Amino acid sequence: MKIAVIHGPNLNLAGVRQIGIYGTMSFEEMMAYIDDCAKDLGSNLQLSQFQSNHEGEILDFIHKCHFEDFDGLIINPGALTHYSHAIADAVAAVKMPALEVHLSNIHAREEFRSKSVVASSCIGQISGLGAESYLLALIYLINLGGREQ
Amino acid sequence: MKIAVIHGPNLNLAGVRQIGIYGTMSFEEMMAYIDDCAKDLGSNLQLSQFQSNHEGEILDFIHKCHFEDFDGLIINPGALTHYSHAIADAVAAVKMPALEVHLSNIHAREEFRSKSVVASSCIGQISGLGAESYLLALIYLINLGGREQ
Amino acid sequence: MKIAVIHGPNLNLAGVRQIGIYGTMSFEEMMAYIDDCAKDLGSNLQLSQFQSNHEGEILDFIHKCHFEDFDGLIINPGALTHYSHAIADAVAAVKMPALEVHLSNIHAREEFRSKSVVASSCIGQISGLGAESYLLALIYLINLGGREQ
Amino acid sequence: MKIAVIHGPNLNLAGVRQIGIYGTMSFEEMMAYIDDCAKDLGSNLQLSQFQSNHEGEILDFIHKCHFEDFDGLIINPGALTHYSHAIADAVAAVKMPALEVHLSNIHAREEFRSKSVVASSCIGQISGLGAESYLLALIYLINLGGREQ
Amino acid sequence: MKIAVIHGPNLNLAGVRQIGIYGTMSFEEMMAYIDDCAKDLGSNLQLSQFQSNHEGEILDFIHKCHFEDFDGLIINPGALTHYSHAIADAVAAVKMPALEVHLSNIHAREEFRSKSVVASSCIGQISGLGAESYLLALIYLINLGGREQ
Amino acid sequence: MKIAVIHGPNLNLAGVRQIGIYGTMSFEEMMAYIDDCAKDLGSNLQLSQFQSNHEGEILDFIHKCHFEDFDGLIINPGALTHYSHAIADAVAAVKMPALEVHLSNIHAREEFRSKSVVASSCIGQISGLGAESYLLALIYLINLGGREQ
Amino acid sequence: MKIAVIHGPNLNLAGVRQIGIYGTMSFEEMMAYIDDCAKDLGSNLQLSQFQSNHEGEILDFIHKCHFEDFDGLIINPGALTHYSHAIADAVAAVKMPALEVHLSNIHAREEFRSKSVVASSCIGQISGLGAESYLLALIYLINLGGREQ
Amino acid sequence: MKIAVIHGPNLNLAGVRQIGIYGTMSFEEMMAYIDDCAKDLGSNLQLSQFQSNHEGEILDFIHKCHFEDFDGLIINPGALTHYSHAIADAVAAVKMPALEVHLSNIHAREEFRSKSVVASSCIGQISGLGAESYLLALIYLINLGGREQ
Amino acid sequence: MKIAVIHGPNLNLAGVRQIGIYGTMSFEEMMAYIDDCAKDLGSNLQLSQFQSNHEGEILDFIHKCHFEDFDGLIINPGALTHYSHAIADAVAAVKMPALEVHLSNIHAREEFRSKSVVASSCIGQISGLGAESYLLALIYLINLGGREQ
Amino acid sequence: MKIAVIHGPNLNLAGVRQIGIYGTMSFEEMMAYIDDCAKDLGSNLQLSQFQSNHEGEILDFIHKCHFEDFDGLIINPGALTHYSHAIADAVAAVKMPALEVHLSNIHAREEFRSKSVVASSCIGQISGLGAESYLLALIYLINLGGREQ
Amino acid sequence: MKIAVIHGPNLNLAGVRQIGIYGTMSFEEMMAYIDDCAKDLGSNLQLSQFQSNHEGEILDFIHKCHFEDFDGLIINPGALTHYSHAIADAVAAVKMPALEVHLSNIHAREEFRSKSVVASSCIGQISGLGAESYLLALIYLINLGGREQ
Amino acid sequence: MKIAVIHGPNLNLAGVRQIGIYGTMSFEEMMAYIDDCAKDLGSNLQLSQFQSNHEGEILDFIHKCHFEDFDGLIINPGALTHYSHAIADAVAAVKMPALEVHLSNIHAREEFRSKSVVASSCIGQISGLGAESYLLALIYLINLGGREQ
Repeated sequence: MKIAVIHGPNLNLAGVRQIGIYGTMSFEEMMAYIDDCAKDLGSNLQLSQFQSNHEGEILDFIHKCHFEDFDGLIINPGALTHYSHAIADAVAAVKMPALEVHLSNIHAREEFRSKSVVASSCIGQISGLGAESYLLALIYLINLGGREQ
Repeated sequence: MKIAVIHGPNLNLAGVRQIGIYGTMSFEEMMAYIDDCAKDLGSNLQLSQFQSNHEGEILDFIHKCHFEDFDGLIINPGALTHYSHAIADAVAAVKMPALEVHLSNIHAREEFRSKSVVASSCIGQISGLGAESYLLALIYLINLGGREQ
Repeated sequence: MKIAVIHGPNLNLAGVRQIGIYGTMSFEEMMAYIDDCAKDLGSNLQLSQFQSNHEGEILDFIHKCHFEDFDGLIINPGALTHYSHAIADAVAAVKMPALEVHLSNIHAREEFRSKSVVASSCIGQISGLGAESYLLALIYLINLGGREQ
Repeated sequence: MKIAVIHGPNLNLAGVRQIGIYGTMSFEEMMAYIDDCAKDLGSNLQLSQFQSNHEGEILDFIHKCHFEDFDGLIINPGALTHYSHAIADAVAAVKMPALEVHLSNIHAREEFRSKSVVASSCIGQISGLGAESYLLALIYLINLGGREQ
Repeated sequence: MKIAVIHGPNLNLAGVRQIGIYGTMSFEEMMAYIDDCAKDLGSNLQLSQFQSNHEGEILDFIHKCHFEDFDGLIINPGALTHYSHAIADAVAAVKMPALEVHLSNIHAREEFRSKSVVASSCIGQISGLGAESYLLALIYLINLGGREQ
Repeated sequence: MKIAVIHGPNLNLAGVRQIGIYGTMSFEEMMAYIDDCAKDLGSNLQLSQFQSNHEGEILDFIHKCHFEDFDGLIINPGALTHYSHAIADAVAAVKMPALEVHLSNIHAREEFRSKSVVASSCIGQISGLGAESYLLALIYLINLGGREQ
Repeated sequence: MKIAVIHGPNLNLAGVRQIGIYGTMSFEEMMAYIDDCAKDLGSNLQLSQFQSNHEGEILDFIHKCHFEDFDGLIINPGALTHYSHAIADAVAAVKMPALEVHLSNIHAREEFRSKSVVASSCIGQISGLGAESYLLALIYLINLGGREQ
Repeated sequence: MKIAVIHGPNLNLAGVRQIGIYGTMSFEEMMAYIDDCAKDLGSNLQLSQFQSNHEGEILDFIHKCHFEDFDGLIINPGALTHYSHAIADAVAAVKMPALEVHLSNIHAREEFRSKSVVASSCIGQISGLGAESYLLALIYLINLGGREQ
Repeated sequence: MKIAVIHGPNLNLAGVRQIGIYGTMSFEEMMAYIDDCAKDLGSNLQLSQFQSNHEGEILDFIHKCHFEDFDGLIINPGALTHYSHAIADAVAAVKMPALEVHLSNIHAREEFRSKSVVASSCIGQISGLGAESYLLALIYLINLGGREQ
Repeated sequence: MKIAVIHGPNLNLAGVRQIGIYGTMSFEEMMAYIDDCAKDLGSNLQLSQFQSNHEGEILDFIHKCHFEDFDGLIINPGALTHYSHAIADAVAAVKMPALEVHLSNIHAREEFRSKSVVASSCIGQISGLGAESYLLALIYLINLGGREQ
Repeated sequence: MKIAVIHGPNLNLAGVRQIGIYGTMSFEEMMAYIDDCAKDLGSNLQLSQFQSNHEGEILDFIHKCHFEDFDGLIINPGALTHYSHAIADAVAAVKMPALEVHLSNIHAREEFRSKSVVASSCIGQISGLGAESYLLALIYLINLGGREQ
Repeated sequence: MKIAVIHGPNLNLAGVRQIGIYGTMSFEEMMAYIDDCAKDLGSNLQLSQFQSNHEGEILDFIHKCHFEDFDGLIINPGALTHYSHAIADAVAAVKMPALEVHLSNIHAREEFRSKSVVASSCIGQISGLGAESYLLALIYLINLGGREQ
């Protein structure tokens, strides 16, 4: 089973950036934590993490996952969440099940953050649970993998 | 560790109600599934499930959890999500960590459903993952329990 | 044939309340009038009237009608018309044909009254015709009863 | 007693037009059905049906009904419902009691259809009940006829 | 000098219609009053009054005025004021100076009446002054006629 | 003279709940304080305090006050202030003079709190003055009692 | 007969200010023109012109007109038109008939200019006719003076 | 193959009207140009052009095309584009493929022009290309004619 | 203890102005009533009343109160309530506790009146209680004076 | 004559992506079809097609076309249509005539798609006509090429 | 070269007022600082500073600057920034180049502060740079002085 | 002292692009002008200019400045100003003081340009002063450098 994890703009600054909101775990630690989660969740899970500050690169990567037959997508689009209809279209175009995750609770911050233009292309959304958002998303996708979709 | 799970209006019709959106699992099966999840997650977890179609009863129950020192709250406010500022105030008033969960992806349905007035009182929100939304919320709260908050 | 008539908040004050808008017929008279209408419309019609100021009780009653195989629902949600998405969800969940009725013409009063959040779950809406709104709704549901739905 | 029934734009295409929404009854059948209803409802009822795709002709007709002392008006303004302030003004200007009817439930379709600019000039509104909307409106106006207004 | 006066939908009901708002002067009296005003204002003024409930006829008449070289236009578009972009376009297309007049003060009634889509095509607007609105408009256009435009 | 004081949802948590906003006085202390105020204000004042988290119970209580001929109503609807059109309707239906009170200044907090749907049914509103809001409301109603209304 | 003419902020710059919009007539010329109009319209007309850039002075002047029993008010509130609810309240408070005038067509410029908060306190509005707006307003008020109001 | 071309209000003034926006080609020349295009595009194409300033006549014409089995519709609704839900309904009711065309780029003018209420009933929209908009629409419909729809 | 009472624009017309809304008490009577209230409330209370129709004078007066160490401010900003961000800024700048009062219930009148831009700078708001609004505000500020703030 | 065709984000997934909306033609086939169209339209037409998922690359390409003296631009900005003011600015900055094209009818889908921020920088827009949108745009630009612009 | 600096309402409280936002420099110090800046920037610069809490005085002063041939205007309208269309009109009327300055970053505070109604009459805006905003504005205007405008 | 200057999309077309708005200075000249300014302002200032049409590259560059300990940031985000929440997040994440600059006065153009989503992350904003905007920003940042921040 192959799952991709996409980290959008500025997520590479985790641990540096507004730690009151995003926590003190560095991006490298977060990547490692997610890798460890994946390992714990089963030996046959192949995880591919990707970070970019470029909307275009994220689109290219989503397309690539599609052509390489990934089984699921976990995406934290960062600030692109709120305006990138292109990412929404890309996720809808490819047919992998996708989960949208956010470190902070986007529904409890500035008004503009509560609107995700990406949400309508995803199965569901997990927000506010820090790095564990990724863990929970992994658990869901793995369970889903064994089911008829 | 004591965790309460609150099911809001019409959730007792799960399995009966729009199964294209909410799935075929009956409410009784969902309750049992959540109980089983709790048991799997550890013997010292005391789970208390509550369903009501009455906003007032839900408020009373939240208050009661507060006075009985619950350690966490998982709440699916059903349609009250979109207008019950009273539930939002209750969750903010009591100091237990709370997670908001939804069976369906509220961000991918009618416009009015994407707005949760309850969200700003919760740590985070999990939506769209069916009964597993509850499982993931449990995992998060249990992990949180072992941490400084 | 079993039809339920639901009267929402404050309708029990009919005849007391703003009689310029709602008329002088008391609630008891209105109940009796509707019962008489039902009797006139046929002997095999079993009518069940219900009034409550509690959203939760209205939800419980709608669910009960569903499990008791009612053939139709006439609902005047009172002020809940304008915010109770929970009633809308309940009516949509159960599969009885439902008609929304209003004593006053909600489309000719304050702006907020012209929006019914319940409407999208109903077959139709009758507003502004006083107690006769109920009579007309009964006629419609009875005619419908004899047809393929 | 003289009652006019006005059918607005495109209603002459009933039975041809989006039958999932408007039903399969042709306009001619609907006209006949309404005439039959009127006959059933009493011999002294003089019914005058009128269809036009022209807002101006509808206005002229409403004026004419006024000068010919009609006792009531049943109007389905079709799509003009949503923008013809001129029809609203005409109905308000003449003093006959008027009912607004719609074949489909305008409150359960596209957002723009839930707003009737004509409503504030009418006694009430019946929507969503197909051709029977007209029958119910007739019953109401006839009952009204025998009352002090 | 040739000036056209256009009376839009329902203005023919003046004196009949909501006399609290529009006054008791009948449409025939108002037409006569305007004719008298024109006579008083000078012998070389050729006045052409036109009333229609049909937007299309009003458009045709505006076009006709253009081709017959009228020197000015006084238009009371009635309720069409608020939605007939077609009349706005017609007035802008033809190059006669045009004044918009209203019997009632449209800026002091329902919210929707304060918006004139026709205004941007006219030199100015006179509202709220009853039949004298026409007299004042005539005075203005005659004065204008003797000036370089 | 009989005056009712209604405390809406979550007010029973006063002293527990966000004390930066609502102060440290417990609900029991606040009830006692109001009772003391009433006693100080005159021996013939009969005060009836009521708290509920249920909109329906509040409606029932308002109706009861009406039938028991109360002379005035002081209501703090809590979060229901912002959406319970049913409470607004109930207060408008019964004819006792009613004052709306709030512990915190609802006009200086989140945007949604500045809108009271209940206000239009009340004589006036006192907000932001803590428990003294109730005292001031009592003084006003008592003074009013001795006047022609 | 006593009529006051009020010129609001920046009108003293007429002839200096954006002459494409407001014309080349200087403020002194405009004042003289209005005085001449008044003289032409009858010997018993006492005209009092007032210009100020201060909202407060305009309010004071309106009050003064009231206490000195003026028979009418012509007011061009300049930019205050769009936000001075205080002027609207003053005009509504005093009972002289008032006309609102504007040199330019406020309905054909920037969006914010089409909204007059003052309009609802006036009998009518004349806009877009330059200095002649004042002449027409004078004619109207004089005619009105001889009538029962 | 039979195709209808409908020209809405004021299009008969092409060449007269705001030539900076609509160009200098007269309406007669435009009609002739379209006829020539049709001839160039194939001998078996039967073109029927229609212009009216009356919404009602346009509706009647669309209905007529339906009953006479036209194969396609090219419609420039003029200003009706922005409010005639009746035309939208008519085009949706009849099942001919329809294209919406505009001489000017409606998306680059006043805000209100960028909204077409007719668009949702059409296959597509061509705007801003002057008389060639019609040519391109013809080419599309002819190509479509030879395909399965 | 020094308290200032500020009366904004048009309040000097109390008793003259719309007495259905503002009551029949003249401004002089209201001033006297407030002075009497102050006297009744204690000998050490120094009250300073101020009325102006000028926003600027009100600002100057608020500043003066600040530099003269007033202990509290009662302000009825009249229509300035709805747009004078400058008054809001002045009240926030000086650190005296301030109460906003209104004779009429601003939340039960025109929509624009329910928004106070001044509210967020005040401790609380009392509206709708006529001249007694001032009495209640005095009582509150005096009680506050004896407390730690 | 040199014309550039720009395909925005996700258009490379044509044929893969939601084929109900975008059709079954693959992107390679669409590119080839457009090349063929160009060849059919004349030998001196030099066509340059470009696809990118990167807004920045599209901007760079538009600039490059400008410096290489292209004669026209056909641009399908994909989802960037709805938010890329940068593309709008780029198209406005360079002076080549530009046409905006869309495979699907953006005016008949989700609300957000009906707004093109790019439109105001283009001569016109063609939407809803699938791959033929490009053909029609080519025809228009070639015809334009032979004219004075 | 003559430049005027206008300080609007409440700026005289600088140093007193919310020092977290506006800094600790007193108004006198700020005036002196600006004078010193002017002296440093050249001997031929004649600076005229003006502060008022009265919109009307600010308008009068702007007019006076115009008639005394000032070469530039630096204006900090304080809270009037957000509603004084009269100041905007005054600045547009006089033809001196004007710069708008703000001590705090108005685009990073409450929503209403990000809208300047004055901005459209100015060359540019400098906000958020404290007293140095004035220095920078002076530098710009002096540089501008030596250029053709 | 190290300061970065970031030029967003299309700024490389300065001098080419709408010169009525952006002026005739080419981008190369503007870069040179800014470099010269920096040199004039002091020998220890190290300036790093960067232009990109790619949001992602701008984000990467901001991050790089952070890790290379720049002392300040001057950013003209071009059209990204209005939608790039990602740039706003990046500027907020890194802790260098940042100034937002614009060549044109964004508050005096199209409505959408007056909203900067980037503003809330910056100290201040300078707009409308052409290339001198950069000079003024440099002066500010250098002055700031010598101060406690």
